[in-house]
Amino acid sequence: MEVVFLGTGAGVPSKDRNVSSIALRWTESGGDTWLFDCGEATQHRILHSSVRLSRISRIWITHLHGDHIFGLPGLLGSRSFQDAKRPLTLYGPEGLEKFIQSSLEVSGTHLRYPLHIVEVCDGDHLECEGIRVQVARLEHGIPSYGYRIKEPDGPGALDAERLRRERVPPGPHVQQIKEGKKVSLPDGRMIDGRKYLGPSRSGRHLAILGDTRPTPAAKELAHGVDLLIHEATYAADQEALAWNYFHSTSVQAAELALAAGVRRLVVTHISPRYSLDEGKRLAEEAQAVFSDTEVARDGFAIRIEKRIVK
Amino acid sequence: MEVVFLGTGAGVPSKDRNVSSIALRWTESGGDTWLFDCGEATQHRILHSSVRLSRISRIWITHLHGDHIFGLPGLLGSRSFQDAKRPLTLYGPEGLEKFIQSSLEVSGTHLRYPLHIVEVCDGDHLECEGIRVQVARLEHGIPSYGYRIKEPDGPGALDAERLRRERVPPGPHVQQIKEGKKVSLPDGRMIDGRKYLGPSRSGRHLAILGDTRPTPAAKELAHGVDLLIHEATYAADQEALAWNYFHSTSVQAAELALAAGVRRLVVTHISPRYSLDEGKRLAEEAQAVFSDTEVARDGFAIRIEKRIVK
Ligand SMILES: [Zn+2]
Ligand SMILES: [Zn+2]
Repeated sequence: MEVVFLGTGAGVPSKDRNVSSIALRWTESGGDTWLFDCGEATQHRILHSSVRLSRISRIWITHLHGDHIFGLPGLLGSRSFQDAKRPLTLYGPEGLEKFIQSSLEVSGTHLRYPLHIVEVCDGDHLECEGIRVQVARLEHGIPSYGYRIKEPDGPGALDAERLRRERVPPGPHVQQIKEGKKVSLPDGRMIDGRKYLGPSRSGRHLAILGDTRPTPAAKELAHGVDLLIHEATYAADQEALAWNYFHSTSVQAAELALAAGVRRLVVTHISPRYSLDEGKRLAEEAQAVFSDTEVARDGFAIRIEKRIVK
Repeated sequence: MEVVFLGTGAGVPSKDRNVSSIALRWTESGGDTWLFDCGEATQHRILHSSVRLSRISRIWITHLHGDHIFGLPGLLGSRSFQDAKRPLTLYGPEGLEKFIQSSLEVSGTHLRYPLHIVEVCDGDHLECEGIRVQVARLEHGIPSYGYRIKEPDGPGALDAERLRRERVPPGPHVQQIKEGKKVSLPDGRMIDGRKYLGPSRSGRHLAILGDTRPTPAAKELAHGVDLLIHEATYAADQEALAWNYFHSTSVQAAELALAAGVRRLVVTHISPRYSLDEGKRLAEEAQAVFSDTEVARDGFAIRIEKRIVK
């Protein structure tokens, strides 16, 4: 699984950072991509990334501020122009459907693929091909949601060395072995797939949160995740400003990461008042509280591996 | 007067060309800027140009296809974020106001400057601080307009050498001399401003046309202009395709330039099927018909000077 930060700035684009968008690529299962938020020019950033428009199957919108949605109409149109046929589902707050419909209608955009729009609510639990997504409302003045993505636990890695040693031939039965099933081999042997797998691996849990002040709902979503992605619009010395504008500081994000026992924190949605260099200050302040913190930049990508269950 | 091509591609952004937008900077009169069309990420291109958001006073939309309007909501919001207070007027086809209102409303965008929206019709003649704008409907399936911009003829250039020779001191009366008025100087002399001006200069005429098939309305708008900006979505060998999609080829644009007796032609709105290098082919084909033709690229800028009336 790869997470690609397409846009990491707050409010307005700057030369350094575009407005918000994050891509989540399910690299192990065919490369389906989920997008989280879609600020203006997200499709432009995608042109210069590993993401393919046609592979985007779901887009999750945290809230309807312009810097999180104004790239949607263009991206939907370009995906159609590229002749993508696979369905696309959008998730987001109430009002998303009206915005999309009026934008497509006024511009005469006819999509050549099925588009579904799901308006989400606080407390929703969605299931997408085995992956569960929990939705909780944060504190941002207008409805702003956080998403917790829970991949199911899975079998361990295939012990290819043991297969070779026991002369198990290649063939369609290997997939069943990978799933830990009992299999009869072409030579008549019956084997138990579980014996050819390493220790089970836990599904990855991520929390990707919309703009917010510190709020208990964020801690619930973030509890024990492998990766927490949180806004840090301001540095620690602007806590009052952050509060007034329903935002967080980098230190507040780190405090949440610590309290929720997450493995890793990436902060994003950095105010254009901070240069890329000043971004280092936000990182240092946060790392003093929670050491596994990074400040995202446009194009920053990280891989999250499955972990072995102890 | 400077014309800056911010985006010169058709339909979808590519690595080479962004979608449509052109800036017209009135450099001689304080640097007010007019924008023609505003595809997605126009504000991003502006960040890397001589254009300032706060100086944009009027935006003219040729038609409502997404590649011409999806940058508007973000640009309007960022202009407000930068604390611009001066009013902004948008002109465009019916439906523009609904798109803007619904985008601003759903995103909770509150503009801190007055925004006026004027929906235009075929045959409209508008007047903007002495500059006249004629509107005509072209042929693009949906309503698509062309704009002819007519600057009034003006007095000749000030003969600064003669002022010096006759010891006319600096002061507020110099502005009146520039306008060709009779002036009483501080020392009591009465002088006739007209004698201190060179030959009168004609106002500049430009035609900036939206997407269109060849149509008589285009010729009327383009008649004798200093600069014609016309789409050339396709090369000459794709005339049938161009017709079917209500577009033009580069040669058709050149034929219009020739027939309308324009001084200079710049073609833009180039299909992403053509690389920047292939764009040279479109240029050569068109130049064979009308030699003063250029194919725009993103960032291409040209100055248009006033001409002396013969
Ligand atoms: Zn935001
Ligand atoms: Zn177009």
